[in-house]
Order: sequence, then structure tokens, then C-alpha cells
Amino acid sequence: MAEFEFINHVKQLFSTLQNDSIEGIGDDCAVLEIGDSSLLFTTDMLQENIHFLRNSISPFDLGYKSLAVNLSDVAAMGATPIASMLSISLPKELSEEWAEEFMRGYHSLSSEFNVPLIGGDTTSSKSDVTINVVAIGRAANCKIKRRSGAEVGDVILVNGSLGESGDGLRSILKGELQTPNAKIHMRPRPQIREGEWLGEQQEVGAMMDISDGVGSDIRHILSQSGVGADIELTSIPTSVDIECALTAGEDYKLLFTVRPDKVDSLVSDYLDRFGKPLYKIGTITASSSLRWLHRGTPTEDDYMGYRHE
Amino acid sequence: MAEFEFINHVKQLFSTLQNDSIEGIGDDCAVLEIGDSSLLFTTDMLQENIHFLRNSISPFDLGYKSLAVNLSDVAAMGATPIASMLSISLPKELSEEWAEEFMRGYHSLSSEFNVPLIGGDTTSSKSDVTINVVAIGRAANCKIKRRSGAEVGDVILVNGSLGESGDGLRSILKGELQTPNAKIHMRPRPQIREGEWLGEQQEVGAMMDISDGVGSDIRHILSQSGVGADIELTSIPTSVDIECALTAGEDYKLLFTVRPDKVDSLVSDYLDRFGKPLYKIGTITASSSLRWLHRGTPTEDDYMGYRHE
Repeated sequence: MAEFEFINHVKQLFSTLQNDSIEGIGDDCAVLEIGDSSLLFTTDMLQENIHFLRNSISPFDLGYKSLAVNLSDVAAMGATPIASMLSISLPKELSEEWAEEFMRGYHSLSSEFNVPLIGGDTTSSKSDVTINVVAIGRAANCKIKRRSGAEVGDVILVNGSLGESGDGLRSILKGELQTPNAKIHMRPRPQIREGEWLGEQQEVGAMMDISDGVGSDIRHILSQSGVGADIELTSIPTSVDIECALTAGEDYKLLFTVRPDKVDSLVSDYLDRFGKPLYKIGTITASSSLRWLHRGTPTEDDYMGYRHE
Repeated sequence: MAEFEFINHVKQLFSTLQNDSIEGIGDDCAVLEIGDSSLLFTTDMLQENIHFLRNSISPFDLGYKSLAVNLSDVAAMGATPIASMLSISLPKELSEEWAEEFMRGYHSLSSEFNVPLIGGDTTSSKSDVTINVVAIGRAANCKIKRRSGAEVGDVILVNGSLGESGDGLRSILKGELQTPNAKIHMRPRPQIREGEWLGEQQEVGAMMDISDGVGSDIRHILSQSGVGADIELTSIPTSVDIECALTAGEDYKLLFTVRPDKVDSLVSDYLDRFGKPLYKIGTITASSSLRWLHRGTPTEDDYMGYRHE
């Protein structure tokens, strides 16, 4: 069964089981409202031989990345991570050193953003490593950014270069583990301070992180906001080919929309605050479709992004 | 590396990374205080061929049990479950029907206790099923029961018969899947309403759920409360042998202590409320040791319970 079909089956099955103060499946995190602030929850499972090859990533990087992809989901809603939980299944023959290095990688990112590890589980397995991480975030209700927040006329932006992680994966699969892009793939940087800051800006509409590629991820914003988009291919920031930039995924940069009259001052303030640029890549439209433009002219191309199958 | 050693390594590594409003590793759940109430978090990973054999448990029961063992941890602290998250890794050759039956079992328990599924992840795997569940609970701060709450003189109680699950596992391993005890093993009943009610009783000191067997679990209460205990072997409620009753684990009944002057009225009130008895199995002592008595006389026996190795 394809992953999307299974998720739809589960959503359907649980649709009658709701809690008024909880927003469940459908955004980067679930949101539990408690007074003026909310707690946010997200979880990701990383499976050996599906998400990673044990011989192609150091245990330190794998530990770092396991937490990073979850913190990225918290950042994507404008929240601050406050805790994590880690479950890990380890083959019996795996060395103590491997497990300790994994934890050192996990700890290094935890420590940088002051995210305590508050629980978890550990078990043995017959052959594969399976990792499950939960990240918990917190934000004032007014700062939370959802996929549904885009409005017609909004400018679409990303906060960094795309596709390098996907190119790095191509290198890794060829056995070249030391290229700069391979390193970007293995140690993705969650945009935590950037996400918090964008959460504070009222003029930011929708926001999410780029895990499956803009070609796939933007569609979530469009469907949940009930809008369309024009994206200018020549505006995509990348050092690799456009196909890879839009479809390979695992960028873990932020994709968001900003009210058009405020976008220039926001770009300028962001540059002042973080010393790096934002990139305008398109516009939210009133149509129901996603168009890829080349120098303003619609193309026949389509970019679907990574499909979970 | 043994599981306990790894957990100790992790606790040590993260000891400097704390948040004043969060109690982390060391109890049935982590506790995040928010004003007058707290949120509680627990997670368990179930690994095929370690925690279950796919041919020896129906997918419905496995789905039910995966959630049950987590809700049990929430109940064990006197809290009410308010949400869960599920991550599952499914071998590609596994049928759609298997996954749907698993979800029906998970949903049936979710539905009974009104616990929405608010997030999760699904992935494929090469060969094994791996399941990770997170349960989130909520309780008024004054109702939360910890392992550290036992006092000298407290009476030790359990709220149901022990060892049937362990005996059921013996049957299952012999291929007898339909015995009454095999069914108890496959569909453990989380003591949710019982845990909530015990949380409301001020005279309850320490509480936890019995996952590894009283022989192992009671030691957590003793070490965290800084006390000893005398346990009367003839008072252990069981329909199987005493070794199995104390060491096999997976009972998911509640183990707790009660102030001695209040214990009889509590036992009586519980019987009125739930129509089933509580069982007094021993006393908290000022010594630093755990003694197993037979009709009041200390024995040489020891019961260690399940060791995670």
C-alpha cells in the first residue's frame, strides 16, 4: 500500500475521534492549544535501508540528522523546540561505539538549541536500525504559521539554496561521501531561529519546511489554502540542476508566503537579522493550478517532488 | 550493549541539558508542568521478532496492544490520556489487509477512551515491522503519582491478578494461541479509569504500572523513594505459579502504595467504584532491602523480573 493511501485510510478511520483543542494530522506538527500558547508535536521514523544506508553515514551524523528533521517541523510552524523523545532499535551485533557516537550526534544538536531529551525507548532488533524521534515545541498562539495561511497575491519565498541535499544523496549512492553536498545531505541544518523569527512576523501567511522538494511541498500550501501559484524557475536558488532543486527534497529550508506590500521590508529585516538573503520564487494566485514559469512565460514542465510510496 | 547500560549512558550525556518545568527520564512518563496542570509523555517501541512474532498475534491485537502499553504508562501516573501518535514501518510485501486490521485494533482502543490520533509517520522496511507509539496525558498537578512517593509504613497493593500474561506468552511460544491467558497477553487492558481514580486519592503515595513484573518494578519505587519493602508471597494474586506471577511481566496492572490508616477505606471505595478488589501484597519498610516473606517469615528466594538486555 502506498504511504499516502495508508495515511488517508487512517485519517478517515479517526475522523470521528476529535478533541476541540487539538489540531491533528495535516500540518508539519499537531497543535494542542493551552490558553494563550500551544504545544506542538511532530514525529519521524527513519528506517535503515529505506532512509539511510548504515555504511554511508556516520553514526554521529545519523544521530544529528534524526533530531534535525524533527526540529525542522517545529521551526516550520514558527515554534521553539522545548524537548525531544528518542526510540531506537539496535541490531545485537552493533557495537557500543556506534550507539555512543549516534547519541553524541543527537546530543550535539540538542545542546546547541537547548532541547532536553525527556524520554524514549531502546530495544534490540534482528538486523536493522530503526529510529523514531518526537519533537515538542511551544509558541504563542498568534505566532503559529500553518500551511493554510496563504492568500492570493502573497509572495512565495524560500530561505536558502535548494537541491544540494539531493545532489549530495546522488554522490553518496555513488560512494562519494565527502563531497560538500554529501555533507549537506548528512547534516541538514534545522532553521530554528529563522522559523521563530518568521513566526513573529504578522505578514507571513503560510509556512512549512521543505522535506519532499518544493515541487511537492508547495502543493500542500495550495490545497490547504485553496489557492494556486505561479513559480518562476529562474528564481529558484540552487547550485545544481532545476529538477533536483525542485524534486529531490530533504532541503529542510523554509517555504513561506508573505503579504505583498510587506515583503521588501521583511527581506531587508531578515538580512539584517541573519546575514543571509531570502529568495522570492513566485506568487500565490486565485487560480486553482500550479504553474511553472520561465522568465514569466508558462512552461509545459511539471515538478512533482518526492512521492512516499 | 545491555539496554540499561545504554539508558544510563544517555542519561549521563544529557544530564546538563535540563528544563526547569520538565521532569524527564525516570518515571512512567515525562511531566511538563503548565500552570496548575501538567502534560505527560511516554513512548514505547515494539520490534518484530523481539516483542512479538507476526505469525503469533493478529494485526488487530497488535494494534490494540501497541496503544495499550502506552496508555498504561499514562494511567500509572494518575493522568488521563488525551492523544497519541503512531509511527510504523511496514515490509513492502505485507498486505493492505494486515495494515488495515492493525489500525482497526489501534482505533478500537482509541475510540473506547476517546484518544485522538494526532500524528505519526509511516514508512516501508526491508523485512520487519517496527511500531512506535507516543501517548500524551494530562492531569492536575496535585493528582500526579510518581515512583518516588512511597513512605515507610505504606501498604503495597496491586489492582489485579498477575502472571496470566506471562503464562499466556508461554502458550503462544508453544503455538497455542487460543488459551485464555494467551488472549490476556495479546490484549492487555490499560487501567485508565482505575489510574485516574487512584490519582484522585491523596492517600496513594507511589504508583507505576507493572510491565516487567513486580519482582523488577517494585525496585524502581524502592530506589526512587529511598525505602525498602516486605512482600508476602502468599498474598500475590495469581492463577499461575509464583515465579511467573512476579517475574514474567506485561501484566499492565497498577502497583501502588497507600498510607496505612487509609488503606481499608480506599480498598472498600475502590470495590464500590469498580466492582473488583484491590490486593494488599506487602509493606514499605525503613530498611534498604526488599524481602520476600512466606507467611510472615523471610525466605531466601529472590524474584528479579524481566531484564531488558
